[in-house]
Amino acid sequence: MLESLKEKVLQANLALPKHKLVTFTWGNVSGIDRESGLVVIKPSGLDYDEMTSDDMVVVDLEGNVVEGDLKPSSDTATHLILYKAFTKIGGIVHTHSTAATSWAQAGRSIPAYGTTHADYFYGEIPCTRAMTREEIEGKYELETGNVIVECFESQNIDPMNIPGVLVNSHAPFVWGKDPNNAVHNAVVVEEVADMAMKTLSINPSTPPMDQTLLDRHFLRKHGANAYYGQK
Amino acid sequence: MLESLKEKVLQANLALPKHKLVTFTWGNVSGIDRESGLVVIKPSGLDYDEMTSDDMVVVDLEGNVVEGDLKPSSDTATHLILYKAFTKIGGIVHTHSTAATSWAQAGRSIPAYGTTHADYFYGEIPCTRAMTREEIEGKYELETGNVIVECFESQNIDPMNIPGVLVNSHAPFVWGKDPNNAVHNAVVVEEVADMAMKTLSINPSTPPMDQTLLDRHFLRKHGANAYYGQK
Amino acid sequence: MLESLKEKVLQANLALPKHKLVTFTWGNVSGIDRESGLVVIKPSGLDYDEMTSDDMVVVDLEGNVVEGDLKPSSDTATHLILYKAFTKIGGIVHTHSTAATSWAQAGRSIPAYGTTHADYFYGEIPCTRAMTREEIEGKYELETGNVIVECFESQNIDPMNIPGVLVNSHAPFVWGKDPNNAVHNAVVVEEVADMAMKTLSINPSTPPMDQTLLDRHFLRKHGANAYYGQK
Amino acid sequence: MLESLKEKVLQANLALPKHKLVTFTWGNVSGIDRESGLVVIKPSGLDYDEMTSDDMVVVDLEGNVVEGDLKPSSDTATHLILYKAFTKIGGIVHTHSTAATSWAQAGRSIPAYGTTHADYFYGEIPCTRAMTREEIEGKYELETGNVIVECFESQNIDPMNIPGVLVNSHAPFVWGKDPNNAVHNAVVVEEVADMAMKTLSINPSTPPMDQTLLDRHFLRKHGANAYYGQK
Repeated sequence: MLESLKEKVLQANLALPKHKLVTFTWGNVSGIDRESGLVVIKPSGLDYDEMTSDDMVVVDLEGNVVEGDLKPSSDTATHLILYKAFTKIGGIVHTHSTAATSWAQAGRSIPAYGTTHADYFYGEIPCTRAMTREEIEGKYELETGNVIVECFESQNIDPMNIPGVLVNSHAPFVWGKDPNNAVHNAVVVEEVADMAMKTLSINPSTPPMDQTLLDRHFLRKHGANAYYGQK
Repeated sequence: MLESLKEKVLQANLALPKHKLVTFTWGNVSGIDRESGLVVIKPSGLDYDEMTSDDMVVVDLEGNVVEGDLKPSSDTATHLILYKAFTKIGGIVHTHSTAATSWAQAGRSIPAYGTTHADYFYGEIPCTRAMTREEIEGKYELETGNVIVECFESQNIDPMNIPGVLVNSHAPFVWGKDPNNAVHNAVVVEEVADMAMKTLSINPSTPPMDQTLLDRHFLRKHGANAYYGQK
Repeated sequence: MLESLKEKVLQANLALPKHKLVTFTWGNVSGIDRESGLVVIKPSGLDYDEMTSDDMVVVDLEGNVVEGDLKPSSDTATHLILYKAFTKIGGIVHTHSTAATSWAQAGRSIPAYGTTHADYFYGEIPCTRAMTREEIEGKYELETGNVIVECFESQNIDPMNIPGVLVNSHAPFVWGKDPNNAVHNAVVVEEVADMAMKTLSINPSTPPMDQTLLDRHFLRKHGANAYYGQK
Repeated sequence: MLESLKEKVLQANLALPKHKLVTFTWGNVSGIDRESGLVVIKPSGLDYDEMTSDDMVVVDLEGNVVEGDLKPSSDTATHLILYKAFTKIGGIVHTHSTAATSWAQAGRSIPAYGTTHADYFYGEIPCTRAMTREEIEGKYELETGNVIVECFESQNIDPMNIPGVLVNSHAPFVWGKDPNNAVHNAVVVEEVADMAMKTLSINPSTPPMDQTLLDRHFLRKHGANAYYGQK
């Protein structure tokens, strides 16, 4: 069942330690098969070096385990909310990568300071509002997803234009057209988070980049008039 | 004698350079066999790449060498005090890992700024008070242990809920249910120390995280109602 | 055609990830054959680990593809402007290396703080002015080159004495006598950018280094009286 | 001639990139044979991966090449001054390691902030005064040595108690009882420089460590009453 997607999700999970985005088991990747509405996700708390594609868990969009002997990631409910609200995304990554997590802990959105950022994110990478006591004590992982969706909807952000978010006091969630692309974007989030922190340390009053430059770089790689790469 | 524990203590010591927690011989791990009350510890000043399990030294809780040709770690007295006061711990790690040592040198406890911290430590990782001249000039390593115990007892901290400490102007001591778990926690201490430093550099007035969120994350992985991992 | 230069350009491109100057495909190196006026450059958006010397694209100084099946780097126009204005350079590197890019994002030139800098750069590494809306919306990559040339000409900087620049809100361009030497200088730009940032964090009011010391170190390695190395 | 010392000097030079203390050829190690008064030093500007022990250059204390086909390191005169003034040292290392060089560029001595420092350096690692125009334009490398010696003599510092120095606006020189020990100390200088920078970033008003604690740690590893290691 979904063997090809399981293999992609496995490979995307294995890419996390390779890109130094995770310590121990602090991360997970999922992928969705939009036709069947089924999601493949990493099992909870398993070591990366002992996982096989057979360990991947298949769940439906309501969180019922459809296939797999292991418990799905404890963050599954967050992934499912995002797949339901952001209907064009095909893969999601959650990590506690160092620099991005530091911005999340600081409760600050990552400003677009330069073209590295603009090549991937069409504006700042937002940090969600703090969750309420009720949300935290209730269905916490599901509410985490809801707070992310609220963040994007209330600010009218297209999740395909800003494929990532910082969950306040927690860490980043990043997505893409498929699991591999989501990991790619997670690497970029960590890199721009690191650069933004260093930019601030060099010049604490650095303003966000020029909007025209942001437009140019984002649209050079994305959308109808993209001219980057071999397309 | 205690061959299995010696092997575990050796492996835990060898894991320190693998996790980049030590430079040269600046670290040591011990483990205790609670039944016999005997402690296995790394010998003093030996290179990691030439150690074998036979080099591990067995001492009793009063510091008498029970087995082993080499001198035990110069920090042995500190370990023994901790084993006597913290009766549930099974392994102890001492390193001079960079970020955690920087917090110790700054004389600051590491605040709980986010869920990475909360997943392992149920509150800030405390920094001990400065030692007195008498303590330093007396049985220094033993007094280092006493200052740690005083820190936890005076603040009513359960050492199983906060499995690590920063010794003022010195470096971290970290523990766990066994030597391997103690090393795991030492990796986490270094990672959260690094993130906390970066969090401060992004937003110098970052407050500690919400208590409800701290509760949720710690209790999701620890205690009777834990639901993380394959348990 | 230009087989030897293609191989050099390929090797110089492959050196970028080796020196940790690039993430994914975020970088490109070119080389020029001054006799024929032809430039060899990396194709756009190709993975480093699948490139061969046959993939290198040959263009003339007006940007016409003379040989090669792939599209040249999207930054080709910038390279060509530099080759036309800086007639002694033989290779150009563009990266988004972390520390140098952070200075570019901060909009700050990298001051000459010490002899590491002075051994390679005869003064601060300048940051260009922000580009205008017209420049960004027009022939952007070509105008990027023009802004770099304007920066050097308006300040009377000899590009052989300061073989690199920070493009404002973007990243460094670095050059040298050939592609390999340009990569060498790009490594140095990143290293001095990192050191300069750390110097500021230790002492925010650090002044630029003494001019006499700058002279001594630069001239010890460059020019008629150089006495460094086996020359 | 001095084959054993040449091999030791070669190995010590090769250890520099292994410990990430040097970029390219930015570093050199020498060793002295006190009986003959001859110094073995790395040749100037040679790549680390092509050096053999036969490339090592033998010079006398006045700088005359006694054996070797290559030019000795351009910093040779600095090494010789140190060997003449600090008569107990057997090896010298010069690097531009990142954190230590940043302190040198900032013109600041590295305070003793904790026991990692105290285990090796009996007080702050001093930064020399700026050199005068005459010194820089004269016999620069020799005067660099003189400024280091002046720094230690004017403050009555025993070079065996503080085996390293930061040359203002330049980088560290570090020494030891032999070339290998000098490299060991150079690793420590870089590590304590990095920790001290991070300590300042966490708490900008961190005071130097307690003198009693500094005494205890230094004397636990050095001098007649040392009790660290298997001695």
